[in-house]
Amino acid sequence: MFTRQQAAALDEADSLAGFRERFVHTDPELIYLDGNSLGRLPRETIDRIQAATVEEWGGGLVGSWRTTWMSRPAEIAAELAPLIGADPDEVLLTDQTSVNLYKLAVAALTYQVPRSTVLTDSGNFPSDVYVLSGVAARAGGSVRMVDVDPVAPSTKAIEAALDAQVGLVSLSHVNFKSGALLDMRSINRAAQSAAALTLWDLSHSVGAVPVDLHGTGADLAVGCTYKYLNGGPGAPAFLYVRRGLQHDLTQPIQGWWGQDRMFDFRLEYRPAAGIARFATGTIPILSLTGAGTGIGITAEAGISAIRTKGVALTSMIVDLFDAHLLEFGFALGSPRDAELRGSHVSLRHPDGYRIAQAMIDDGVVPDFRAPDVVRLGAAPLYTRFVDVWDAIDRLRDIMESGRFRDYSDQRSGVT
Amino acid sequence: MFTRQQAAALDEADSLAGFRERFVHTDPELIYLDGNSLGRLPRETIDRIQAATVEEWGGGLVGSWRTTWMSRPAEIAAELAPLIGADPDEVLLTDQTSVNLYKLAVAALTYQVPRSTVLTDSGNFPSDVYVLSGVAARAGGSVRMVDVDPVAPSTKAIEAALDAQVGLVSLSHVNFKSGALLDMRSINRAAQSAAALTLWDLSHSVGAVPVDLHGTGADLAVGCTYKYLNGGPGAPAFLYVRRGLQHDLTQPIQGWWGQDRMFDFRLEYRPAAGIARFATGTIPILSLTGAGTGIGITAEAGISAIRTKGVALTSMIVDLFDAHLLEFGFALGSPRDAELRGSHVSLRHPDGYRIAQAMIDDGVVPDFRAPDVVRLGAAPLYTRFVDVWDAIDRLRDIMESGRFRDYSDQRSGVT
Repeated sequence: MFTRQQAAALDEADSLAGFRERFVHTDPELIYLDGNSLGRLPRETIDRIQAATVEEWGGGLVGSWRTTWMSRPAEIAAELAPLIGADPDEVLLTDQTSVNLYKLAVAALTYQVPRSTVLTDSGNFPSDVYVLSGVAARAGGSVRMVDVDPVAPSTKAIEAALDAQVGLVSLSHVNFKSGALLDMRSINRAAQSAAALTLWDLSHSVGAVPVDLHGTGADLAVGCTYKYLNGGPGAPAFLYVRRGLQHDLTQPIQGWWGQDRMFDFRLEYRPAAGIARFATGTIPILSLTGAGTGIGITAEAGISAIRTKGVALTSMIVDLFDAHLLEFGFALGSPRDAELRGSHVSLRHPDGYRIAQAMIDDGVVPDFRAPDVVRLGAAPLYTRFVDVWDAIDRLRDIMESGRFRDYSDQRSGVT
Repeated sequence: MFTRQQAAALDEADSLAGFRERFVHTDPELIYLDGNSLGRLPRETIDRIQAATVEEWGGGLVGSWRTTWMSRPAEIAAELAPLIGADPDEVLLTDQTSVNLYKLAVAALTYQVPRSTVLTDSGNFPSDVYVLSGVAARAGGSVRMVDVDPVAPSTKAIEAALDAQVGLVSLSHVNFKSGALLDMRSINRAAQSAAALTLWDLSHSVGAVPVDLHGTGADLAVGCTYKYLNGGPGAPAFLYVRRGLQHDLTQPIQGWWGQDRMFDFRLEYRPAAGIARFATGTIPILSLTGAGTGIGITAEAGISAIRTKGVALTSMIVDLFDAHLLEFGFALGSPRDAELRGSHVSLRHPDGYRIAQAMIDDGVVPDFRAPDVVRLGAAPLYTRFVDVWDAIDRLRDIMESGRFRDYSDQRSGVT
C-alpha cells in the first residue's frame, strides 16, 4: 500500500509542483479538496484585481472601456480556447453558466423547429435540467431524461433515446456527483446522425480534463470559470458555438453587447457577426479579471500535464479508499477506471454529511452533495500527493474513532 | 451671470461636499462628467474588494459562501430598496440589466397571454428595445414604439397608445440621451387602467433621482449599479418585482439560484418563494462587492440631498450654456425644467464628436452619444460647482478658438 513517504516522493517528482506556490495558502496546514467547487486564489490575481480596481477603474475611469476592458474577454477567450479544443473566435466570456446554457438551448431549439425535445441524463447538474426543462416547455416540448448509472453512465442508453423529436442533446461532460466522464465523441457522433445538436456543460471538466470540442464534433458548450480554472467566486462563465453554426443561430436575450456596431445605437436589432452575437450586457470586469488570471495559469501549466497529475491523484484516492475506508460502510461513488472519471472522487456514506463536517474540523475541506456524497476534488495545480494521503488518513481516523457521530445530521441551507 | 466665485461659494455651502473625498481622484485636475456612464471608484471599495479577494476568497475559500457571500445580495438589496421606493424583499441583485429586463419582460408577457404587445417609446435605451423586440416576437407579438420628443416626451402619447393588445409597458425612467424624466406615476396609473404591467429601466435615475416604485404603483423594474451608484464596471444589476406579483410570475431562465432549496438538488424545478425566484446562477462576488459599497455611500448621503444638489448642478449647466454656448451652434438636448430632467444635460452639436475629443484633451470628460450628443453628467457625490463652471468655461474656449476642428470626426467603435 501507498505510504506517506511514497506520496512525498511523487511530490518531489511532480513537474507541476511549482504551481502550488502560485496560489494563496492562508492556512498552510489546510488540505483543500474542494477546488472542484471553488478553486483557490492565484497570488497574481490579487495584484491584477487591485490594478483593475485602482488603475483601470479609479484612474482610467470610463476610458478604460476603450483602452482595456472591451478587448479583455477576447484576450481571455484566446487563452481558454486551446483548453477546450476550440478556436478563439468560437469562445465568449459572458454571463453565468445558467444564462449561457439558456441562451444556447433556446437558440438550438429555435433552429431545430419543430424538434422540441431536449435529451439529457439523470446525472446532469440539476440547474441544467431546470434550465433545459424551462426552455423545452416554452418551445412546446419537454426534457427526455435518460436514467443512467452515475458511476457507469451508458452512452448506448443515451444514443438509443435519440429520435426525430430530439432537437438538442445537453449533458454535463463530467458528472458533478460521481465524476464520471461521458464519451463526448460517441455522443456527438450519434447526435449528428440523428440531426440533433449537442450542448455540453464543461463546468466540472474544464481546466482538469482535456476537452476537444472541435475534434469530437461538438456543436455548443458552456462552462464556469470558478472551479478548476480558479477564476474566483461567481466569475463570468463562457460559451462555445461551433463556427459553422454561429451564423444560423440567434439567441433570445438581444442585449446591446450582441448587437452589430453597438455604439451606433440604432433601434433595430441586428445581431453581430460571429460569436459576439451570443453576448448580452456589460461584463463584470473585476470578476472577469480574476477569470483571466486563473485561466492564464492553467494555460501555462498545460492541460496535458494537469490531466496526468489529476489521474494520479484520483487514482491514489481510490487505492487508499480500498485499503482504508471500505470497511467503514463507504461505497465508491466514482468510476474505478481513471480514464472514465474527471478530477474528483466521490465517497458515499449514509453519514456523509456528518463525516464531511468532521473532516472540516480536522483541517480537510471536502464538499458534501446530498444525500450522501462526500466529494474529494483533486485540483492538480495546488494539490499535493501528501495532501491526499493525509486526507484519507484523517478520514480513516474519523471513522475508526466514530467522531463523526458528534456532529448533527441537520444540514444548513448552504452546503 | 454665474461667476466662478459664486460656484465656489456654492461648494462651500454644499452639505454633500465631504463625499468628494470618499472617491479616488487619481488626477485631481480632471473634471469627470461621465459618472452617468461609469461612476467613480469609492476609496473604501479598494479595501473591500481586497478583503473579498484575499480574506474571503483566499482565506475563507468555499466556506465564504455560507458565512458571507450567500447573504450579501440581500444585504445590498436592503440598502438599495429605499433609494427606489421598494421593500428589501422586492429587490434582487443579480445578472446584468439586459438579462434582468429579458427575464421580467418574458415573465410579464407569459402572465399576460394573449396580450403580446410591448409598448415603449423611441427614447428608450436601444438595448432595451432590442431585448423587448426579441421577447415580444417570441410571444407572437411585437413592440409598439411611441415616437416621442426626447426633450419633452409626451406622457399622453404613451397613454394614448395603450389598448387591449398591450401586455407590458416598458420605458426608461430617464432618457439616456436627453436626460428627460418620464412621469412614472401617470404612466403607471394609465397602464394599470389598461390592465398592462409596467417595467421600468432605472439605470439613468437610480442614485441620482428619487424613485418611488411603490408609491407610483410600478410593477417591475431593472437597473444597473455602475453609473450614479458607483458600483464599478459591469457590476451586477438589480431587479424589482412588486410583492403582490411575485407569486404570479415565473421567469424563463430557470437556474438553480431561483430554485426552492437549491442545495437539495432535486431534478424537478420548483421556483423559490418571493423575489429569489428571479435569480439565475452564481453571482460574481468581487463585482457584487463593489456594487455594495457604492450603494452604501449613496444610501448614506441620502437620495433627497443628492437630488437637490443634482438639480442645482444641472441648472447651472443650463444657465451657463445659455450664456456662453448658444452662440456656437449648440442646441440644448435636455429639458429646461429641472423637475423634468435627471442628472445629466445633453448639448447637441453637429461637431459633437470632435468637441467631445477636444474636451477630453482639455481635462474634461463628457460622454458622446451618436450622432451629435455631448452628455454632461453631474454626479452629485463628487462633482463640484466649480467643476461645472470650469468645464463650461473650457468648452467655450474650445468653441471660440475652433480647436475642435483639429480632431477627426471618424468615430472609433467604442465611445
